[in-house]
Amino acid sequence: MKIDKKNIKAFEKVFRLNLINSITGIKAGNLIATRSNDGADNVAIFSSVVHLGSNPAQIGFVMRPQIERKSDTYNNIKENGFYTINHITKAIYKQAHNTSANLKGSEFDLCDIKKENIDNFKAPFVLESPIKIGMKLIEMIDLPNDCILIVGEVELIDVQESSINEKGEVDLSLINVMGISGLNGYYELQRMDSLPYIRLSDKSKIE
Amino acid sequence: MKIDKKNIKAFEKVFRLNLINSITGIKAGNLIATRSNDGADNVAIFSSVVHLGSNPAQIGFVMRPQIERKSDTYNNIKENGFYTINHITKAIYKQAHNTSANLKGSEFDLCDIKKENIDNFKAPFVLESPIKIGMKLIEMIDLPNDCILIVGEVELIDVQESSINEKGEVDLSLINVMGISGLNGYYELQRMDSLPYIRLSDKSKIE
Repeated sequence: MKIDKKNIKAFEKVFRLNLINSITGIKAGNLIATRSNDGADNVAIFSSVVHLGSNPAQIGFVMRPQIERKSDTYNNIKENGFYTINHITKAIYKQAHNTSANLKGSEFDLCDIKKENIDNFKAPFVLESPIKIGMKLIEMIDLPNDCILIVGEVELIDVQESSINEKGEVDLSLINVMGISGLNGYYELQRMDSLPYIRLSDKSKIE
Repeated sequence: MKIDKKNIKAFEKVFRLNLINSITGIKAGNLIATRSNDGADNVAIFSSVVHLGSNPAQIGFVMRPQIERKSDTYNNIKENGFYTINHITKAIYKQAHNTSANLKGSEFDLCDIKKENIDNFKAPFVLESPIKIGMKLIEMIDLPNDCILIVGEVELIDVQESSINEKGEVDLSLINVMGISGLNGYYELQRMDSLPYIRLSDKSKIE
């Protein structure tokens, strides 16, 4: 089935939204939690987290345009400078999905998501997440379509130790981490294979 | 297991690389294919594709810093302005992984990946991919750590029709699309649930 730019424009809105959100493939499902300077906690689901670098450890995520209305996540990160990225599992994906509604009050309470404070980190974590990442804002970058790429540095990782092997690889299936496709498709992950890391110029591994 | 910034810095290099690449969760595995202006075709594996918007349909992906050496993918996109994103499946993930080596010549031939030309699109596609996306470059954005975010607009989609439902959602498990964790962990995907799309302010859906 071939679809061109004209077809995409002509699709009914929800069909286009679902299709274009689906075609990039599987995405990580993360709860991003923030705290306003006056102590109000917020948590919202995102599926746009992207690895940027290991040393220093940097992670990005994309937010929708903040022109008509600024989200609590955006405002809190901007004023507080810290936020957390927490993985969604089979046990909490339904509650996590509900945070996509526009709620008055803290989604931790309204969506029944348990909160955890770790050390003196300036944003809350999600208690039940097997991978929790404390982040410090580096930069908010405007993209051509008014989306915003939030770039941050990893300050703290709390990860279930049993999921990490001696090489530092995390087995996502051991800890029931889920994937998201589109806006609302949830996937189980089954680790199938681990291929050798191919070093630059190491052509011999190929033949 | 709690890991702070100091621990991250002190880890042995490969352990840190694997860990930090793993903690963002599952990622889409894509072959990005390009063509130089003198007709040399290139294809390379990426796991940094991110959805940016549906209308107009925009997709981004992150490339490593191009300071010491510019990759063929980078050079080709810059000079030609077009590229393709092709999904990795169980049938081709081993060949796809091999493209991460630094090869002299076209990875299509060297890694045994079948090429397809669609209409007159200015870059090649991967024949066996069940989702192929033809992209037009919009902007290359420098990130704080010298990585580059490539932002493009969707020009063409070739997708296996049987994988799309009436709402426009693609079932990735039906077409054997894989996920990647870290640098070299390959995952099978099993669609588990499709939750209702929650509209803004539609709090009733939660209770």
